[in-house]
Amino acid sequence: MKEPTPQDLTALAHTLAHDNHTLRARMQSFAASDPIFIPRYDLPLPVTRELAHQRLHRLASQNFLSVFDFEKDPLKIFAAHEMAGIMDQSMATKMTVQWNLFGGTVIKLGTGRHRKLLGGVDSLKDVGCFALTELGFGNNAVEMETTAHYIHETHEWDIHTPTIKGQKYWISNAAVDATWAVVFAQTFVNNKNEGVHAILVRIRESDSHRTVSKGVTIQDMGAKMGCNGVDNGKLFFDHVRAPAENLLNRYSDVDRRTGQFSSSISSRRGRFLKVADQLLSGRLAISSLCLGGTKVCLTIAFRYAHSRLCVGPEGKSDTPIMVYQLQQRALLPLFAQTVCLNFGLNYCKRRWSALSLRAHQQYQQVQQSGYKAKNKNDHDEEAEEVVRLCCVIKPLITWNAERIATTCRERCGGQGYLSVNRFGDMIGYAHAGITAEGDNSVLMQKVTKEYLALLQRQHKSKGETLEQWFMKLREKTVDIESLEGLLALLRLREAGVFYELGSTLESKLAKGKPLFQVWMGEESDTIQSAAKAFGERVCFEQTLDIIHTLDRGPRTILETLLRLWGLTLVETYLSWFLTRQLMTPQKGLLVPQRAREVVASVGEHSLALCGILGVDERLLFAPIAGDLGGWEEYNRSDNHGELLEKSLLDTAGFKPHNAFRRSKL
Amino acid sequence: MKEPTPQDLTALAHTLAHDNHTLRARMQSFAASDPIFIPRYDLPLPVTRELAHQRLHRLASQNFLSVFDFEKDPLKIFAAHEMAGIMDQSMATKMTVQWNLFGGTVIKLGTGRHRKLLGGVDSLKDVGCFALTELGFGNNAVEMETTAHYIHETHEWDIHTPTIKGQKYWISNAAVDATWAVVFAQTFVNNKNEGVHAILVRIRESDSHRTVSKGVTIQDMGAKMGCNGVDNGKLFFDHVRAPAENLLNRYSDVDRRTGQFSSSISSRRGRFLKVADQLLSGRLAISSLCLGGTKVCLTIAFRYAHSRLCVGPEGKSDTPIMVYQLQQRALLPLFAQTVCLNFGLNYCKRRWSALSLRAHQQYQQVQQSGYKAKNKNDHDEEAEEVVRLCCVIKPLITWNAERIATTCRERCGGQGYLSVNRFGDMIGYAHAGITAEGDNSVLMQKVTKEYLALLQRQHKSKGETLEQWFMKLREKTVDIESLEGLLALLRLREAGVFYELGSTLESKLAKGKPLFQVWMGEESDTIQSAAKAFGERVCFEQTLDIIHTLDRGPRTILETLLRLWGLTLVETYLSWFLTRQLMTPQKGLLVPQRAREVVASVGEHSLALCGILGVDERLLFAPIAGDLGGWEEYNRSDNHGELLEKSLLDTAGFKPHNAFRRSKL
Repeated sequence: MKEPTPQDLTALAHTLAHDNHTLRARMQSFAASDPIFIPRYDLPLPVTRELAHQRLHRLASQNFLSVFDFEKDPLKIFAAHEMAGIMDQSMATKMTVQWNLFGGTVIKLGTGRHRKLLGGVDSLKDVGCFALTELGFGNNAVEMETTAHYIHETHEWDIHTPTIKGQKYWISNAAVDATWAVVFAQTFVNNKNEGVHAILVRIRESDSHRTVSKGVTIQDMGAKMGCNGVDNGKLFFDHVRAPAENLLNRYSDVDRRTGQFSSSISSRRGRFLKVADQLLSGRLAISSLCLGGTKVCLTIAFRYAHSRLCVGPEGKSDTPIMVYQLQQRALLPLFAQTVCLNFGLNYCKRRWSALSLRAHQQYQQVQQSGYKAKNKNDHDEEAEEVVRLCCVIKPLITWNAERIATTCRERCGGQGYLSVNRFGDMIGYAHAGITAEGDNSVLMQKVTKEYLALLQRQHKSKGETLEQWFMKLREKTVDIESLEGLLALLRLREAGVFYELGSTLESKLAKGKPLFQVWMGEESDTIQSAAKAFGERVCFEQTLDIIHTLDRGPRTILETLLRLWGLTLVETYLSWFLTRQLMTPQKGLLVPQRAREVVASVGEHSLALCGILGVDERLLFAPIAGDLGGWEEYNRSDNHGELLEKSLLDTAGFKPHNAFRRSKL
Repeated sequence: MKEPTPQDLTALAHTLAHDNHTLRARMQSFAASDPIFIPRYDLPLPVTRELAHQRLHRLASQNFLSVFDFEKDPLKIFAAHEMAGIMDQSMATKMTVQWNLFGGTVIKLGTGRHRKLLGGVDSLKDVGCFALTELGFGNNAVEMETTAHYIHETHEWDIHTPTIKGQKYWISNAAVDATWAVVFAQTFVNNKNEGVHAILVRIRESDSHRTVSKGVTIQDMGAKMGCNGVDNGKLFFDHVRAPAENLLNRYSDVDRRTGQFSSSISSRRGRFLKVADQLLSGRLAISSLCLGGTKVCLTIAFRYAHSRLCVGPEGKSDTPIMVYQLQQRALLPLFAQTVCLNFGLNYCKRRWSALSLRAHQQYQQVQQSGYKAKNKNDHDEEAEEVVRLCCVIKPLITWNAERIATTCRERCGGQGYLSVNRFGDMIGYAHAGITAEGDNSVLMQKVTKEYLALLQRQHKSKGETLEQWFMKLREKTVDIESLEGLLALLRLREAGVFYELGSTLESKLAKGKPLFQVWMGEESDTIQSAAKAFGERVCFEQTLDIIHTLDRGPRTILETLLRLWGLTLVETYLSWFLTRQLMTPQKGLLVPQRAREVVASVGEHSLALCGILGVDERLLFAPIAGDLGGWEEYNRSDNHGELLEKSLLDTAGFKPHNAFRRSKL
């Protein structure tokens, strides 16, 4: 690979960022210019939370994002999340709860009568939370126990927590900040369970003490392994009354006069999926903020690997560790993977935004014309596809974030262990991403289940079986040298895994085995592999499509990175290809060899390359991200592992004592 | 696999624990009975450190271990480390610095004139630290910059830090607790560099303020991603004087009268390796304490997986998640691996202890008889073998610790993210283990380098090449059904990787490529694989040897676990076997299938099985390790994520204010 020119790198960085370029630059410059964004470490929980809270207020004051962007430019919201993820993922998490889960749910499930709240979302005047998960119902929320009984006499909802397992759990912003909660509950009208609906409930009053509202109990979940700027709380409701109008009633409502329930969605399952809809954009938001953190990790690790000197040919400490193949093999494939997953995420965001904007337009038309067009089938298929994309990209991005933070930490040695160099925080955030908005592996099961069904429908309509599809693909001659060849291999794997899963299910069910037993007890490995194969193929394809739109300079760079990722994937799945005899042992031997060759060719340019991630140097903060002089200088003074001397804290304009005033600790 | 009986499990647990069974039980009961060992979370750094400090004092008061055990029963020291690792790995790390790195170095490199210090080691009256690593010299300590010049006039050492890069870095116990440091420095006598030696230097005075000694500067390294109970510091020396007698002079000394330097070790490299000798037992100590933490992780995760209910056949939340193959496939192979690595560690500890005790006896004989026996060659070979074992087991155990803590965290979902459930701490500790006492990957390079040389010598003396050795092994028919068959495959892989590395090196060097280029720039993957193949083969072999000593009941259990680990390893290296055509694709297909079968057979007994890890239930502390009622009950009250209510803290007999008195913050 030849020396990439600054112009080529800038062009590629621009393409990778995808949208809202000015916003991205403005947000990073704003944070770089405000000392409150300088990371701080040994702080008590309430102060850590207050810091995230105040940072979020600073951002909000600049109107970088608005809940109304969901109706205009949703990409702006995801871009803001990615930038926030570069700064402070605790703050970014509070952001996503406020703008996406809370604000987004109100704007999309609510109607005219709820819009008055939305101004307070952008200004943070009304901080909200999203009370879906319950202690006993993490991955099976549809079975939640919280109830909302309609009281016709007073036209109110009676919200109640019947059991300990039914307490609302993990509720971000609840322990300290939120005044409103979107509460999800089994809704009973005339003692009939109409399924899960979302109701706005006040949990704190607007008085100066922010008194907890009558009948509501809020408990603080305390210290976590990371993301401690977020105040997670537990909520209990003791027959709390809320006006019937607080039901977010775009799809279901109760008639004030008759007290009759009506819904445009017939099935209870359908109603649940609709009210939990913000979890979809939530997965894109989590992916975006996690990706921001991943870019920070890689940039810090690459820079340190170029300034850290260790044993050289003469045994002196004179050789940058990035020269070592050990370092290159550990970091560069993950870098290439991050770039390609980023292009995949860009695609998912684009698809979700287009669908979401169209849904909004249709809703407006219905409001004006009163006429509701029947959903055409292809539209459902598009919606299902977007669901699959959102469900597969979050696992890929957050698992990648965990591997990258962990690997960068290890490859930066002792320096990587210091809080001030940020990898520890990033590991904690990545784990939050892995579990938030749906456990990664559970989402992968959903993706496989729905995509397998779709494939079977599609190929049936073409009059072919999955086996025939797979057999056609395996006729291609194996080619690991070209990008098209690598894509063909990823398609072959995708087809092969889905075909194997499909036929195994068929034969086992035919033998009378219960589906649950086969799905949860016997085919888990294949189910997980299938969704991964699907997601990785999509990201590879999307990156290849982008390559075709690029000029020669940036194109060559991206081709090399995509080639590295493709080879890495084929190397990972090598035993699968070999046991299926889809590749000869001789060809198989070449795969890791080629991967090493590409890694070596990328290695010498790695410092320049990590510039395409687009992280503003001023937001890296890790001393080891400076040049050798930089981190040596940091280690001259007695800084107690902090960046700011205590004496400078006030100039950072941050008053920690607020924390103790506001916190319940 | 049939239901294991309590007797079988107890027998296996006894074998796994290996030694000092009463000590293990006594230490755990002691900790369980003293509330100071109850974990606490949202604490400021100085308090976290004080807690680890006070916990260590409680243990010391019971004389569970003594530095003199290095001359009597070294296994006792490692057993104490493992138990301490179950309680608090920060405390365990302070323990290993005090008893192994500091005390161990004084007792083994010192002579009669230094033994007066040793009493203070056991009582913690004299807390010490081990000042080897420098900011600029982590993996290349032999190049360190700190100097010790001998001043004949005053018969003193002048200890000096010439540069920022030469500051002593990461020094545990230095920021707050230590009064003594074993300082490693380039030693100059008559301006001749005699290599690195160890000198006792006072860094704090014994007055009530524990004043930092004249010429010494101590800086606090502050917050880390984990292990924050350990007070890591940076040390600078400004021409600090120490009496010449403070040189630990078992192998080198300066004559008071003539001022001449003499050493029983001729090469400077040899002197460095000898003075850094405690890093060897240090690697066993780190492995032991990390293993303690790993056992805690597995026990908590297994128990939660049996009490946590999620979606069942009817869609209700009524099925323990351990029933899911997803959970079993994630946790059980790691469990089996932990047990087998444990047997491997037992072997390494035994070999190191035997060698170390014999060396001590020889030293005593020399002291009495004055006659020094020439080292026989086989003895050197034994020493080299023990070095290899210590260097390979630490990476295997600490990487396993990281994977287990990370996987358990993820498979326990949101609950796994709460500090109170301990996985976050364990991830932090595992990372410390990966880097402490030598970066894992760097140690693996050393193992491969030395073992390759040995293999070449050995086989040459047998008149065969490595290729012939490998060819002989590949004649065996592949058998994945029996333990002997699996061992044969691991041996085949070991031979194959070393043969490939050896021949590649030979041909590349023959072509005139510089060794550094080939070793650091081209063969890294093979070098890492080789050491892993060596270490895993040793652990598998050791476990198999143990199996042959067991009664039928425990034997069947261990056979199943070893089988699972063997299949998991062969599955991991499957593409290597297939590309070398050492296994047919058909046979290869069977490997993951067999692994799944064994996992399923182990799954139903997993709760009982994790009992063999020998963790006292009272030391689990994680609420999710209780039964369903247990963690539901924990979530009833407003505990702020802590186990102790603030009001109970005093009954825990812990006075946090001490922290503020003692700390410099």
